[in-house]
Amino acid sequence: MEISLQEIARILDGDIDGDADCLISGMAGIDRAGPGEITFVANPKYAKYIATTQASAIVCVPETVAPGKNLLKVANPYLAYAKALRFLNPAPSESGTIDPGAIIANNVKMGKNVTVYPFVYIGEGCCLGDNVTIYPHCFIGKNASIGDDTILHPNVTIEERCTIGRRVIIHAGTVIGSDGFGFARDGAAYYKIPQLGIVQIDDDVEIGACNTIDRAALERTWIKRGTKTDNLVHIAHNVIIGEDCCVVAQTGISGSTKLGDRVIMAGQSATVGHIAIGNDVIVGARAGVNADVPDGQIVSGAPHMPHTKYLRATATFPKLPEMRRTLTQLTQKVEALEAELRKHQEK
Amino acid sequence: MEISLQEIARILDGDIDGDADCLISGMAGIDRAGPGEITFVANPKYAKYIATTQASAIVCVPETVAPGKNLLKVANPYLAYAKALRFLNPAPSESGTIDPGAIIANNVKMGKNVTVYPFVYIGEGCCLGDNVTIYPHCFIGKNASIGDDTILHPNVTIEERCTIGRRVIIHAGTVIGSDGFGFARDGAAYYKIPQLGIVQIDDDVEIGACNTIDRAALERTWIKRGTKTDNLVHIAHNVIIGEDCCVVAQTGISGSTKLGDRVIMAGQSATVGHIAIGNDVIVGARAGVNADVPDGQIVSGAPHMPHTKYLRATATFPKLPEMRRTLTQLTQKVEALEAELRKHQEK
Amino acid sequence: MEISLQEIARILDGDIDGDADCLISGMAGIDRAGPGEITFVANPKYAKYIATTQASAIVCVPETVAPGKNLLKVANPYLAYAKALRFLNPAPSESGTIDPGAIIANNVKMGKNVTVYPFVYIGEGCCLGDNVTIYPHCFIGKNASIGDDTILHPNVTIEERCTIGRRVIIHAGTVIGSDGFGFARDGAAYYKIPQLGIVQIDDDVEIGACNTIDRAALERTWIKRGTKTDNLVHIAHNVIIGEDCCVVAQTGISGSTKLGDRVIMAGQSATVGHIAIGNDVIVGARAGVNADVPDGQIVSGAPHMPHTKYLRATATFPKLPEMRRTLTQLTQKVEALEAELRKHQEK
Repeated sequence: MEISLQEIARILDGDIDGDADCLISGMAGIDRAGPGEITFVANPKYAKYIATTQASAIVCVPETVAPGKNLLKVANPYLAYAKALRFLNPAPSESGTIDPGAIIANNVKMGKNVTVYPFVYIGEGCCLGDNVTIYPHCFIGKNASIGDDTILHPNVTIEERCTIGRRVIIHAGTVIGSDGFGFARDGAAYYKIPQLGIVQIDDDVEIGACNTIDRAALERTWIKRGTKTDNLVHIAHNVIIGEDCCVVAQTGISGSTKLGDRVIMAGQSATVGHIAIGNDVIVGARAGVNADVPDGQIVSGAPHMPHTKYLRATATFPKLPEMRRTLTQLTQKVEALEAELRKHQEK
Repeated sequence: MEISLQEIARILDGDIDGDADCLISGMAGIDRAGPGEITFVANPKYAKYIATTQASAIVCVPETVAPGKNLLKVANPYLAYAKALRFLNPAPSESGTIDPGAIIANNVKMGKNVTVYPFVYIGEGCCLGDNVTIYPHCFIGKNASIGDDTILHPNVTIEERCTIGRRVIIHAGTVIGSDGFGFARDGAAYYKIPQLGIVQIDDDVEIGACNTIDRAALERTWIKRGTKTDNLVHIAHNVIIGEDCCVVAQTGISGSTKLGDRVIMAGQSATVGHIAIGNDVIVGARAGVNADVPDGQIVSGAPHMPHTKYLRATATFPKLPEMRRTLTQLTQKVEALEAELRKHQEK
Repeated sequence: MEISLQEIARILDGDIDGDADCLISGMAGIDRAGPGEITFVANPKYAKYIATTQASAIVCVPETVAPGKNLLKVANPYLAYAKALRFLNPAPSESGTIDPGAIIANNVKMGKNVTVYPFVYIGEGCCLGDNVTIYPHCFIGKNASIGDDTILHPNVTIEERCTIGRRVIIHAGTVIGSDGFGFARDGAAYYKIPQLGIVQIDDDVEIGACNTIDRAALERTWIKRGTKTDNLVHIAHNVIIGEDCCVVAQTGISGSTKLGDRVIMAGQSATVGHIAIGNDVIVGARAGVNADVPDGQIVSGAPHMPHTKYLRATATFPKLPEMRRTLTQLTQKVEALEAELRKHQEK
């Protein structure tokens, strides 16, 4: 596909400084892009390459000055890059057919243009929206629903009654709606508490590979609009995750904890159960949050503390043995001083 | 289903204080329950709701006093709640049929009333007990056995020769019997050591979603009766986990380690290999256990220490930079004192 | 199978001290081996069993002296053990047939002697080498390639265009080629950056169960020859892992990070993104590496530090509360001394 810079400017809502008619057929990093390709500078440290790149056009911030270059000036070059990449590399269209090698209960409601691959199992009473794509080996339990334009990659399990919104992407191997981990003690033994609730995933959510999101004991485990999870994330029963959150790989969120909107949980972090994390909170990598966190805080460590405090404490940590030695020496010196002074006083 | 409080009392082995004939059709939390519903108070902090709940009956401890209310008094209200929930919400019965869309080797031994969903693969020489349920996309390798009343959720892999007990529940995406991680060094390269043992899972075990339980190098990896694991748990080759243990999400247990009975491993905890953890040990969240732990201890931290010691140390940790400053100041003051004293002595 | 010690010596390239004609039919640990079995001593602490073992032959280091015993002396007994185990327990041969219950696109290129089990899905344009084995419920996306002698265990997902080398083993439930976790901020929302690259896995790699290895944004995520990963490992987009590395269970490697050759990452460790870890580096269990690490270092802790420094710091950590008390007492004593000295001076 060849497209004029003019047309790209229209799509990205940017201003051209240079030749609006130059033709673009692809995209590449600024140090690799050649003629016919568009590149971008989002990070100022790459601005030095603008003068020497062979790219036919450069997406950049409005302040950029580069005589002789074709610039496409936008407010957010990284976002523009992502949009251009999607435009220039459209997802291949799916077949829009239900493969006869899938097994689908009789009373499933199907939208228009649904693609179902072989070896998919869809249980009774399910409801699939328009343009849904279900890859091989997915399981959709009874009375579950999948919204318009949603994609389930291979080997995804959606247990019964769970509801998945529109434009959701669920990566391979993920399990939605497994039983929450709830038991009552019966002497030494554990007695299973039935997990009767569901998982509800709202529109525009993306769930990584091999996530496990447990169904609620009663009511629902709820992932709200726009939230993205990375791989191997565990979300326990009755958790509520707000809108536009970002949960990085191998994080675990314990039962009944509630995240506000726009929360970021960095990799391998975790929370205890039954706490509330406010809006716009950032939880550092490997942090273990064990109590409520107010809006807007950045916390790290386990148990968590303000991030700056954590940085200072961890910087001091390797000096602990040296501190201990100093402390022993000081103790001896102070004892010597005390003895000395006693001698003086006795005189 | 409607049932009298009398009948519930019989099932839960409790005593009624109030109207034994009142009819119950459901269950709800004490702040939400309405007429026709039974609720429960297990946590004393909810006792204040007893006076105002609209529930038709309340499961509570024997000491409870609430004139005008229908009380069902039991020794362990939380356990009674779990039992009532299961009784009032019986699991839907399975078909008891082998779907023709499953592929099952000729010489598989099948118990009575086995349910096998489409897209299940069962290899040669397997043996399934009575009332077993196998959901779609499960794989059962050659010569594996599955005990009575056991349920495999979708996408579960049981590799060859592994044995699963009775009344076991295995959640979706879990892998039982993958090769243990064993290699001999051959210069810089790793030479694979064949993993010839099995995984043995005993009766009444529940395994969460996306667990990985490796087969033994020789002999067996062994999960004993009544143990429960949460999601994304890793259990390495030759590990032995005792009875009625509880292994919370994202925990990893290294090779050949042995847990006693009734051990609790909290979330994201881990052990090194080849150690022994005693009976009734509690391992705190994120703890890293690197040596044997005697019976009954509570340990936290990495490397682990007694839990109370850990709490005190972590409470002091954020104060490290301040301690370091104090230490520097003290050092200067002590030097000044020493100089002062020297002056005195020289006089 | 019975085989003479002479023949085993030939296979393991060792020297016999004793009866070269004695017949061996199996292998066992030195404390359990009986007549007809061969055992081995790799760890010097087991050397004491040599005198009393019932085994018919013992694999051991050349220096071993044990009159009356049949010794097979080799430079590396543990490697010899692994080789003997594989020789004495050859993997059962696969059928070499494509099961009609698999669904394979028309234009897939198949090598010789390929085994494909039922419920396997192989997309258009794929290419499978000789002697490949694909277990049930595997998905191989369009235009992916699988090298000679490679084994995919059940429920493995290989997304489109990924390339898997020769003699690779991928354990059950693993996902290769899920989208990298890449988003551009669009106000509060996340805008998905298409992940257009691939995953390339080279020869002789072994990948554990339930790993997630993301495809690159552009270009490739790359696992080089001979590397082994344990279970539940997460490898983000654009990561490059060198040759003969060992990545232990539940480790996470963030985007664009590069590992050299022969790196060991112990269990539950992690790295931030965009760093370089040199050749022969050892990263301790649970370490969090947040900056480049030069060749040959051993690091632990989060953030990481030299391993010996980490050991000293963690040994001091439990003493923090005691150090703090000492510091308070010293402060008081120094103040008392200062006051005392002022009194002296005022005299």
